[in-house]
Amino acid sequence: MKTYLECIPCFLKQALHAAQAATKDENKTKQVLDEVAGLIPQIPLESPPPETARLIYGAVQRVTGVSDPFKSHKEESIQKALSLYDELKSIVIQSQDPLHTAVKLAIAGNAIDLGANPDFDFDKEITFFMESELSLEHYASFRQTLEKARTILYLGDNAGETVFDKILIETIGKDTVYAVRDIPIINDATIEDAQKSGINDVARIISSGCDAPGTILKRCAPEFLNVFQKADMIISKGQGNFESLSTEQGPIFFLLKVKCPVIARHLGEEPDKMILKDNRIFEG
Amino acid sequence: MKTYLECIPCFLKQALHAAQAATKDENKTKQVLDEVAGLIPQIPLESPPPETARLIYGAVQRVTGVSDPFKSHKEESIQKALSLYDELKSIVIQSQDPLHTAVKLAIAGNAIDLGANPDFDFDKEITFFMESELSLEHYASFRQTLEKARTILYLGDNAGETVFDKILIETIGKDTVYAVRDIPIINDATIEDAQKSGINDVARIISSGCDAPGTILKRCAPEFLNVFQKADMIISKGQGNFESLSTEQGPIFFLLKVKCPVIARHLGEEPDKMILKDNRIFEG
Repeated sequence: MKTYLECIPCFLKQALHAAQAATKDENKTKQVLDEVAGLIPQIPLESPPPETARLIYGAVQRVTGVSDPFKSHKEESIQKALSLYDELKSIVIQSQDPLHTAVKLAIAGNAIDLGANPDFDFDKEITFFMESELSLEHYASFRQTLEKARTILYLGDNAGETVFDKILIETIGKDTVYAVRDIPIINDATIEDAQKSGINDVARIISSGCDAPGTILKRCAPEFLNVFQKADMIISKGQGNFESLSTEQGPIFFLLKVKCPVIARHLGEEPDKMILKDNRIFEG
Repeated sequence: MKTYLECIPCFLKQALHAAQAATKDENKTKQVLDEVAGLIPQIPLESPPPETARLIYGAVQRVTGVSDPFKSHKEESIQKALSLYDELKSIVIQSQDPLHTAVKLAIAGNAIDLGANPDFDFDKEITFFMESELSLEHYASFRQTLEKARTILYLGDNAGETVFDKILIETIGKDTVYAVRDIPIINDATIEDAQKSGINDVARIISSGCDAPGTILKRCAPEFLNVFQKADMIISKGQGNFESLSTEQGPIFFLLKVKCPVIARHLGEEPDKMILKDNRIFEG
């Protein structure tokens, strides 16, 4: 997905949010905003937004000296999600179609994005999502592709959401590689976060090698690219992965909550919808 | 009111909105954003936001060649408000306290801010406001000051809202000067807009001399400053006038709808509240 003009004010908003999470020093925060403002004329609109986001978080780190401003938020998200694991697991097991329920829960878990929504209410969101329907209903294709697949690459997104991913991976029950960001960026999961979430019980965890809040293939590691090319099916979580992979070929299924009006318009959907999109099915 | 760090992403959002209203050319819109981004390091945080807003709209005009991007929106707002005049007038006349009702309606009219809220629903908002209570309840002081005042300076804000202002001025029934922006900026009223709204039937219309979406005294004309200093009471409409006059002395009453979280926090109020604030009463 390209960068839309509407993304530009949002880059500054993200910079502000991350800087304020990293420091209480207003001068440093202003310096971050000034640096990010300086990047704007160079933003390539043909690149996906995560390309610019990596520069923004680089500026936050450079100016504040804090490399992981959302560390405690991530930790809290994981602990909260782990405390809900048994409850979520029994919702899945007791449901009529455990796979469908696990998919919905995995998308509900994607709502745990402190980077986009600092006032997130965990319990309320889960109830909301369980009562909501999926948009872009590609579930039949998802199930069919899954049945034939032997190897799955699962692209993680946020810390905390990782616990929900674990339940979906368990429900699928196939040979799975779980890929995460190479370094801390926003509240995205790293190898450490995936491990704390218990992903290693159900999948092999690797780094994508990418330092952006998405999966930009030209910035990924050879090991990851090898898995990406050979996987029978790719399950991609969240907006950042969607933004960076929406134009790629292959059996990619995007599971995300639509958190911004730009992605909503791009998908022809309403904000706040839960999306399950088969990348091979074009609608529009 | 100073410029808060949260205002900075919003400046870019305003630039985008105004540029998109002025042109369909994405390259020009990007150029506006680049120019406004270039201004960010120079923004004096101690100045009120309208100081920066005038630079933003200057950039929009320079790049797009359009000096009044919201001209048709303003025209529509005025026509819509004029069509409601009789209905609004009878709400006021038939109410228990016509002055209180006219104040509430004048603040409801302030919700007509296409600059801040492009999806405004006129009828819904009026119903909402008539059912809502005023926050910062300085109405007693307002009424008392009004009783003693012989001359009133009324600072207009948006086009369309002007018609609501006319009703409040009629209800007050005192010698009033109505001041507007010197040039078109966002959807703020100019002399022409005030005339089209029928303000000349109830007040003398003057330009403040200010080219910002607010009333920055150091940028105002001598004639205006003379009226400002001599007026027994000043009624100031909207956020822009509040932002630029909140630290001034004198019998200023601010009537506004809180449209952004920064002003809400500054006032210690919730967003969307209707405010009637006597500048001489400090709360906090």
